[in-house]
Amino acid sequence: MISKNKFRQIVSLQKKKERDESRTYVIEGDKIVREYLKSGTRIKLLVAKPEFVSSLKISEKECIGEIETCNYEELKKISTLTAPHNALALVSYPDSRTDPAEILRELSVALDFVQDPGNLGTIIRSAAWFGIRNIICSFNCVDLYNPKVIQATMGAILNVNVHYMSLNEFLKTANDSGVPVYGALLEGNRIYDESFERRGVILLGNESKGISEELTPFITKKIYIPKYTDASYGIESLNVSMAASVIFSEFARRNG
Amino acid sequence: MISKNKFRQIVSLQKKKERDESRTYVIEGDKIVREYLKSGTRIKLLVAKPEFVSSLKISEKECIGEIETCNYEELKKISTLTAPHNALALVSYPDSRTDPAEILRELSVALDFVQDPGNLGTIIRSAAWFGIRNIICSFNCVDLYNPKVIQATMGAILNVNVHYMSLNEFLKTANDSGVPVYGALLEGNRIYDESFERRGVILLGNESKGISEELTPFITKKIYIPKYTDASYGIESLNVSMAASVIFSEFARRNG
Repeated sequence: MISKNKFRQIVSLQKKKERDESRTYVIEGDKIVREYLKSGTRIKLLVAKPEFVSSLKISEKECIGEIETCNYEELKKISTLTAPHNALALVSYPDSRTDPAEILRELSVALDFVQDPGNLGTIIRSAAWFGIRNIICSFNCVDLYNPKVIQATMGAILNVNVHYMSLNEFLKTANDSGVPVYGALLEGNRIYDESFERRGVILLGNESKGISEELTPFITKKIYIPKYTDASYGIESLNVSMAASVIFSEFARRNG
Repeated sequence: MISKNKFRQIVSLQKKKERDESRTYVIEGDKIVREYLKSGTRIKLLVAKPEFVSSLKISEKECIGEIETCNYEELKKISTLTAPHNALALVSYPDSRTDPAEILRELSVALDFVQDPGNLGTIIRSAAWFGIRNIICSFNCVDLYNPKVIQATMGAILNVNVHYMSLNEFLKTANDSGVPVYGALLEGNRIYDESFERRGVILLGNESKGISEELTPFITKKIYIPKYTDASYGIESLNVSMAASVIFSEFARRNG
C-alpha cells in the first residue's frame, strides 16, 4: 500500500517543474527498471508488484533506497501508461558535466527543437546502438525526462549523455575548433557519396520546420538522404528519428 | 454544426469492426487531409473549420462528397488527438488487389506481428521514401486504419499498398519463386557486407519477440545492423522502425 505522500510525489513528477526541482524522474516498465538495476544505477524508490520484488537479486536490491510493494490498481493510479507494467521507479538526474570541447572530440548529435517525445527517445536509442555518446538539445526540445521519452529509449538512456544548451554556442565552438557540422537538409548532397570524419556534429531539425535559419550558417556540410520515388504526395520528408538512424548508420558503416 | 448521426458515425470509426464494416477510415490533420486532396483521392466527408474549407481550391472541393463546417469544440469531440487540427475526413478503403506474384517482382516488406501503431506508420513512411510499394502484414499486426497508424504515415500511405495475409503463404511463394527473403535477425550477417538483389522480401519481426520461429525457415539471407558500442545495458536491439529505415537505406544505396 503506497502512502498518500508517496502517491502525490510520484504523480507530481509528471510535471517538468517538479522533476527539475527534486532532480528526480520516473522510469516505468519491467524491462527498463531491470536494465537500470543491472547497470548498477541507484534507484531512490521502487514501487512494484510483490512478484517483481521477489524476483530481484540481492545485488540488485542493494541499489534500491526504498521498496514499496503494491497491486495493479495502485500502479495504474501512478502510471502514465494505459496498461502499466509491474514496476515503476524513481531515479535521480545524473550529474553529467557539459564540456563542449570534450564532446567535440568524437561524433555527437545536435537536435534543434525536436518536439515529439517518441522521436527524442528513439534518437537516443539509435545513438546508443551506433556508439554515439552525446546528444545536445536546444532548450526548446522536449524534456528528456518526459515519461514518453524515457519509455521510448527502452533503457538506452543509460549509455547516452543528453545536454541542453544553446546550439548557437555549441555549433560556434565546433566551427571555431574546425570540427565539421553535418546538417540534414533537403537541399543537401547525397549522403551516400559524402565523406565523413570520425569526429563531427550531426545536426537535425524540427519535425515540420527543419533546421532553424539562424543555425544554417554553422553547417559545414549539407547532407541529404535521397528519395527513391517519383511519387509526389505525402512524402515531403522522412521522420526525423528515421533520418537520424539512417545517418548514424552511414557514419558507422564508413568509420566503424 | 455536425448532426448527431454524423457525430456517432465518425466516433464509431475508432473501432476496427466499424471501419471494416463500412470500409471507411478517418484521416486527421490539415497536412494529411491536404495531401489526400492534392493526390485526387476521393473524400466521403470533410469536417473542418470554415477557414480550412474556404482555403480549398475548386478542384479540391470536387473530390469531396460532403462538407460540414464546425468549430474547435466540435472537432475536439470527434478527434482522437489531444490537440485536434482544423480538419478531419472520412475516406473509403482503397480497392487494392493482393497478388503475391506481382508483389514479388520488386522489393517488398513483410511485417510479422508489428504491434505498435507508430512503428507501422513510420515504416510505411520510410518505405514510401525509399520507393518500396508493397508491405505485407501478418494478420496479428496492428490495423492499418488505426488512427495512430494513419497519423504516423503523414500521408505516405497514399504511395504504399498494405496487404494483410498469411506470411507463411507469402514467404513460401517467395521461396518457390526463387525470390530472396532477407530476415533481420540479431544473429545475421553484417548488412554492410551483404549483397542484395533488386527484388526480394525484407522480413521484420515483433517489437520484443523478433521474427516468429515458424517463419525463420523461409529466410534465405539473415541480415544484422551491427552495434557500434561495448555498452551492455539498455541496447538489446534497435527499434523495429529504425531498423527498417536503415535496411531500406542500404538497399537503396546499392540498387538505387
